Amino acid sequence: MIIVLKPEATEREIDHIVDRLRELGLKPHISKGEERTIIGVIGDDRILQNQPLAVLPGVESVTPILAPWKLVSREFKKEQTIVDVSGVKVGGRKLAIMAGPCAVEKLELTVSIAHEVKAGGGSILRGGAYKPRTSPYAFQGLGREGLDFLVEAKKQTGLPVVSEILDPRDIELFLEKADIIQIGARNMQNFELLKEVGAYDKPVLLKRGLAATIKEFLLSAEYILSRGNRNVMLCERGIRTFETQYRNTLDLAAVPTLKELSHLPVIVDPSHATGKWTLVAPMAKAAVAAGADGLLIEVHSNPECALCDGEESIKPTKFKELMLDLKKIAEAVGREL
Amino acid sequence: MIIVLKPEATEREIDHIVDRLRELGLKPHISKGEERTIIGVIGDDRILQNQPLAVLPGVESVTPILAPWKLVSREFKKEQTIVDVSGVKVGGRKLAIMAGPCAVEKLELTVSIAHEVKAGGGSILRGGAYKPRTSPYAFQGLGREGLDFLVEAKKQTGLPVVSEILDPRDIELFLEKADIIQIGARNMQNFELLKEVGAYDKPVLLKRGLAATIKEFLLSAEYILSRGNRNVMLCERGIRTFETQYRNTLDLAAVPTLKELSHLPVIVDPSHATGKWTLVAPMAKAAVAAGADGLLIEVHSNPECALCDGEESIKPTKFKELMLDLKKIAEAVGREL
Amino acid sequence: MIIVLKPEATEREIDHIVDRLRELGLKPHISKGEERTIIGVIGDDRILQNQPLAVLPGVESVTPILAPWKLVSREFKKEQTIVDVSGVKVGGRKLAIMAGPCAVEKLELTVSIAHEVKAGGGSILRGGAYKPRTSPYAFQGLGREGLDFLVEAKKQTGLPVVSEILDPRDIELFLEKADIIQIGARNMQNFELLKEVGAYDKPVLLKRGLAATIKEFLLSAEYILSRGNRNVMLCERGIRTFETQYRNTLDLAAVPTLKELSHLPVIVDPSHATGKWTLVAPMAKAAVAAGADGLLIEVHSNPECALCDGEESIKPTKFKELMLDLKKIAEAVGREL
Amino acid sequence: MIIVLKPEATEREIDHIVDRLRELGLKPHISKGEERTIIGVIGDDRILQNQPLAVLPGVESVTPILAPWKLVSREFKKEQTIVDVSGVKVGGRKLAIMAGPCAVEKLELTVSIAHEVKAGGGSILRGGAYKPRTSPYAFQGLGREGLDFLVEAKKQTGLPVVSEILDPRDIELFLEKADIIQIGARNMQNFELLKEVGAYDKPVLLKRGLAATIKEFLLSAEYILSRGNRNVMLCERGIRTFETQYRNTLDLAAVPTLKELSHLPVIVDPSHATGKWTLVAPMAKAAVAAGADGLLIEVHSNPECALCDGEESIKPTKFKELMLDLKKIAEAVGREL
Repeated sequence: MIIVLKPEATEREIDHIVDRLRELGLKPHISKGEERTIIGVIGDDRILQNQPLAVLPGVESVTPILAPWKLVSREFKKEQTIVDVSGVKVGGRKLAIMAGPCAVEKLELTVSIAHEVKAGGGSILRGGAYKPRTSPYAFQGLGREGLDFLVEAKKQTGLPVVSEILDPRDIELFLEKADIIQIGARNMQNFELLKEVGAYDKPVLLKRGLAATIKEFLLSAEYILSRGNRNVMLCERGIRTFETQYRNTLDLAAVPTLKELSHLPVIVDPSHATGKWTLVAPMAKAAVAAGADGLLIEVHSNPECALCDGEESIKPTKFKELMLDLKKIAEAVGREL
Repeated sequence: MIIVLKPEATEREIDHIVDRLRELGLKPHISKGEERTIIGVIGDDRILQNQPLAVLPGVESVTPILAPWKLVSREFKKEQTIVDVSGVKVGGRKLAIMAGPCAVEKLELTVSIAHEVKAGGGSILRGGAYKPRTSPYAFQGLGREGLDFLVEAKKQTGLPVVSEILDPRDIELFLEKADIIQIGARNMQNFELLKEVGAYDKPVLLKRGLAATIKEFLLSAEYILSRGNRNVMLCERGIRTFETQYRNTLDLAAVPTLKELSHLPVIVDPSHATGKWTLVAPMAKAAVAAGADGLLIEVHSNPECALCDGEESIKPTKFKELMLDLKKIAEAVGREL
Repeated sequence: MIIVLKPEATEREIDHIVDRLRELGLKPHISKGEERTIIGVIGDDRILQNQPLAVLPGVESVTPILAPWKLVSREFKKEQTIVDVSGVKVGGRKLAIMAGPCAVEKLELTVSIAHEVKAGGGSILRGGAYKPRTSPYAFQGLGREGLDFLVEAKKQTGLPVVSEILDPRDIELFLEKADIIQIGARNMQNFELLKEVGAYDKPVLLKRGLAATIKEFLLSAEYILSRGNRNVMLCERGIRTFETQYRNTLDLAAVPTLKELSHLPVIVDPSHATGKWTLVAPMAKAAVAAGADGLLIEVHSNPECALCDGEESIKPTKFKELMLDLKKIAEAVGREL
Repeated sequence: MIIVLKPEATEREIDHIVDRLRELGLKPHISKGEERTIIGVIGDDRILQNQPLAVLPGVESVTPILAPWKLVSREFKKEQTIVDVSGVKVGGRKLAIMAGPCAVEKLELTVSIAHEVKAGGGSILRGGAYKPRTSPYAFQGLGREGLDFLVEAKKQTGLPVVSEILDPRDIELFLEKADIIQIGARNMQNFELLKEVGAYDKPVLLKRGLAATIKEFLLSAEYILSRGNRNVMLCERGIRTFETQYRNTLDLAAVPTLKELSHLPVIVDPSHATGKWTLVAPMAKAAVAAGADGLLIEVHSNPECALCDGEESIKPTKFKELMLDLKKIAEAVGREL
């Protein structure tokens, strides 16, 4: 940690700061320059999170040096994490394609889309049973029944299932019925939910919040790992910007950045990122080219009747074509589908 | 709702769209221009939230005309809502000043700050017992014990208490111990929590999310009202932008905008908005000048030892001075303190 | 254009609005719904840019239907524009790779980098002679001499040259010495400069502004085309967001979106977009996968001594490796390098 | 400047970094911690702007300590700058109110609005002769003739005049006819224009760019001061965010922040910041409460016929009322109107 002092900081103020640092078990090193005095502090920045050093008289700024996370970092664990999702490996050479409807609506439809996803080359079935909708008047999902439909689709196709949890009180249900518990963008900083899923070893797909920095994203993952659950996958799904042509701005630079900073697998969701089915294919291709470990794609056999996010769903035939294109790009970057 | 068609839309596509609209019980009006055909749709836009009309062949764009909320709107209820917080009225001519420490730490300290807040002219005591912290290694709050300290402070000063809930499983505790249940920025779209607090008539202070639009903010309030709880106060607390000089960018234009669109009281939190105690006073003054119904201010008698957000807390003496200045500004805009 | 009226709009107000529209030569169509009256206006939205209809009494909102641009649109010109840059075609099946140093520093260095760029497979040499620097104390470029070095490099390698103009008074110089005149992000809305380059037929590379919407970006291009110059290439180079891990956030969804809305070629600059050389390769690959028509890449043989943006420059060996990878991705999406 | 090394940095790399720093005339201080080695560098950070130290092998990050500006800083000049605009003082106890039409349209109208501005208590007349319009098809201003109308209005009312320059080739014209040269938001980083106005001592009103950080804003002002012109006024006019209810998000925390960092006067433009006349009054009040030294307000006697930005213009009667309210708020914060 680096503490920069104000030009007018007095000796007494400096002494007070140094005393305070020593009380906290830290070793301050003072460097006096012509324009500023700087105090370099050796020790664990993390124990300082509860200490508002910036308010000490004479302090101009405090800059942490060490990353505030630990368990999620590449520095802590060099080798890439590979999450085992009921037999499907996520994070290895082979890309994981998670596809399916935004919301689970009917049993037959769910099963038929699952078959299409499998036929197209998808390895995991996605489907929302509990839906976080901006408006209270929008379809809120089938709930428990939706999860049962996914379980049935899994039984028939063998595809493991990912579905979003909204309420910590539903944890038992998800442990039983889902293969991956998804924490959605709106809940990325729902810390009680993070702690809840952190208490088990069930794989978790953690989506980046609408306006979450990479740092906050990794700290939310750290919440889960610090509770004991190491099976976490990160998911970039677009961030909020001023641009209104698409729902969000897909931030693909996050992919190599997250992979450099962390050992966790990185998935990209081009469907929610754009909110437009015409952009799903180019962004899926770009994500694979950028080094993503997998994709989360909305597929629906009848988008114009979908109860949720039909605008961003692609049809099974488009999905199949896309998979063929992705195969070539995956090979070009040393991966396979 | 206005549906704009693509220039190349065929008659068959137009017929299909019109049929679909009629199936939904809506009345389409077609206007053919030189460059585009437009379909105006009379009827309730809200029932369309589950219908992805933009994917119908031939459609270029769909623009809703009516606001997607109802109960929170000024159109639905013309007169200003005044929330009664255990006797303190919020939303009337008199401004509501909610002040206190970011996090509740010790009983004595809590009680002494409460006395200072009261002496300065504050009308409600704020204090966090459960703290949503970005890092799992930061102080997470005292929990239930913290709420008890607030109850004790209320007993000694008479100040009603506002505190933040994080987990729907704590609802009973908050119903018993808090006078206002706060939903923090990170939980603005934690819809399960919104539904939970919506089921009672306990006053709720709903904070705007870090990157929430005015529209999303009002829809989150609509979740609470639509469940039956009409005692909702909105709180602007800064939004996330590219600027790094302050923690967030306080969006004061939201104050008159929210008050025009909705009948709910609007509170401003200059402390979290800026993250710097030096900016609290000017932003508190600006908020009152902009028409806010109240303020949420962090006050701590020893900021440099505060376990949470000491950087943005002002000392009781500063708080008293600020209140004197605010009194003059309140009068200048036809309000009182 | 759609005009939505306030619920309380009076008949007199409606008449006034209708009269005003007719005065402007437009045909209003009135639809009265239960909650709102809507006026659909048939006619050219563009002539309305100088008419503040939203202030007419009784008006709630005005929504344009037609895009505000014309000459740049795919609707106006269906076939893809291919810009001929001194023999190098930009916008066709073959990708255009523009590479070179951020700033031109020395003649020998410029020529040697040009040779490396050519050897690696680049088709156009980039290099800044006039540099728009955030700080007045940073290196401002060699100016005219820098352009001469580029001309010499072109003479020796045959690579056409792209360089940035800052001042309309330099237009003659650029017409003589550059093959492409670059308008940088900071000048995207320097309309006098746009008008200046619009008066010739010299190819222009127009970069998207730091916080420019797609709409503003296309309107800036429209400035150039409307003055007569049709040889415009658009360049996505990252937008400003809250994320601080990289200099900007590369917005790759802009690529297919621009290509759908416009017939102009779309280039991507992964170097300025990220500001980090480690991110240049993954973002270059992603850009090609997303459908870009070319790339603008900073290459420097000794980045640690570069006078400008050394952090984001890749070395010639890296550039060669990248080109081999890009070749495969280009093929996977039906293009060639 | 603080250089943090990678955990795996070798002794050889450290030696190379230290050598490089010494070559640049800087004094490195090395501190070795358990997790990281840190090099504190004493010396002028500013000479490092052309040195990409972050690319040196072994370096993880480089953090500057000193602000990159000098002449604009409060540290360099403690006393508040008061700019003399043809006799009207800006930056002192008395607030400067600059008001008038967005664009100058007709002589009579300009003069009549000028009289209204003066009668209402305004001290400077604003009016655009050259208009930077997003669309090439929008009214571009009257140019030289518009400046003449302003000169005439000044002659009749005695109000000094502020008008925006777009092209460095117009400098002579502005030196002759305007009392303040305005650099608009879109030109905040048009460095050639900054250098041009920096060469004279004519007062300059520099507007913050749409997505400019405080740091970039001050550096643009530094461009002007470093060329010799000390008569610079800063103008906050809203920044671009995701919110679409208003044109921009007025960032009032910038006011006390700029005044703390710099000695230059700070003006606020509530009209362009919001783009809605209903928000002008509350934001003007908030700006004064936040400590602004003046306001820039659009006033038009017939907004519905204004050729530019009629939506955000207030009528002269509203302006007068607003001035009365502002007087009270100014007094409440120790200023006068």
